[in-house]
Amino acid sequence: MNYLVIYAHPNPKSFCHAIKEEVIAHIKKQGGKCETRDLYQMGFNPVLGSSDFVQFLQKRTPEDIQKEQDLVRQADILVFVYPVWWFSMPAILKGYVDRVFFRGFAYDYKGPMIQGLLKGKKAILLSTTGGPRFAYYLLGYLSAMKTTIDVGILNFCGIKVALHKYFYAVPTVGDAARKKMLASIPKIIS
Amino acid sequence: MNYLVIYAHPNPKSFCHAIKEEVIAHIKKQGGKCETRDLYQMGFNPVLGSSDFVQFLQKRTPEDIQKEQDLVRQADILVFVYPVWWFSMPAILKGYVDRVFFRGFAYDYKGPMIQGLLKGKKAILLSTTGGPRFAYYLLGYLSAMKTTIDVGILNFCGIKVALHKYFYAVPTVGDAARKKMLASIPKIIS
Repeated sequence: MNYLVIYAHPNPKSFCHAIKEEVIAHIKKQGGKCETRDLYQMGFNPVLGSSDFVQFLQKRTPEDIQKEQDLVRQADILVFVYPVWWFSMPAILKGYVDRVFFRGFAYDYKGPMIQGLLKGKKAILLSTTGGPRFAYYLLGYLSAMKTTIDVGILNFCGIKVALHKYFYAVPTVGDAARKKMLASIPKIIS
Repeated sequence: MNYLVIYAHPNPKSFCHAIKEEVIAHIKKQGGKCETRDLYQMGFNPVLGSSDFVQFLQKRTPEDIQKEQDLVRQADILVFVYPVWWFSMPAILKGYVDRVFFRGFAYDYKGPMIQGLLKGKKAILLSTTGGPRFAYYLLGYLSAMKTTIDVGILNFCGIKVALHKYFYAVPTVGDAARKKMLASIPKIIS
């Protein structure tokens, strides 16, 4: 299987980073192929701008977007690793979606209907939070995140979400709990 | 009243731009004070990065963030004007929230409880969509957008959302409908 790990956290000492490393290690141990996009390290430009639109209108794809689309195309399984910021993704990852999952690549219109163009792919999402689990059940936050991201982005493009796992309260749960979280990664990825 | 218009669209010929212009014109006509942040034109950096975190930990605020926080602080009413991209904001606006609405400025912890620090302010959100109204009622998208943005960002910080108005299907409704939309702005802002 071809995996594409899309990772967005600025701190290489973060727990998110440890999760990403564990994911990659386990994929390799299994004999899977793995490409990683560390959006912060790459200095990925998340701002979908006028020049992108102009090129897309001319049926051209900006070079940096083309590279990402090729990697998505080659992948069987996309693994997103990111912290929840404001009940959503960090802007650098939102901009990856804005720019890479553009119309014509990730979805298109078939008459008035939307057609997902990335059918057959699966996604696994691993998100860390600062707040405790109950805070995400309050006011429907968890369900709203599922609707806007798992359904509204991934399913919209025809991608099946195999799992969206939240690791809650990672700054405060303590080392033993964090180790247990990391130990759960192989089962999640298998 | 002091208004702060926060605008995020790359195209100065967009309908979003026309809405923003109408908003500003009406605020001025009313005699209100109006500051505008055109995030694309400013080249706003939306990537909350390690150097931001380092400075915040040292109780310093990065210069570009400080300027935005001062403008938010001075405003009575925040007017957000943006297109819906992926059932959320464009990344440049999400990153404005990530960087400007940081802990200690927009919210803080009081024991285990979150405390919004921007109480007394109101927000008006004006969003354009490509898809028709019914598409946003399907699968709970509209409600999920309200939960993640109006509640999860603005109410979270203590800001009351006076109105979140969606202008649907703006590329396809035709000129007459778009003119009617623009004509509704004065009532929305008053």
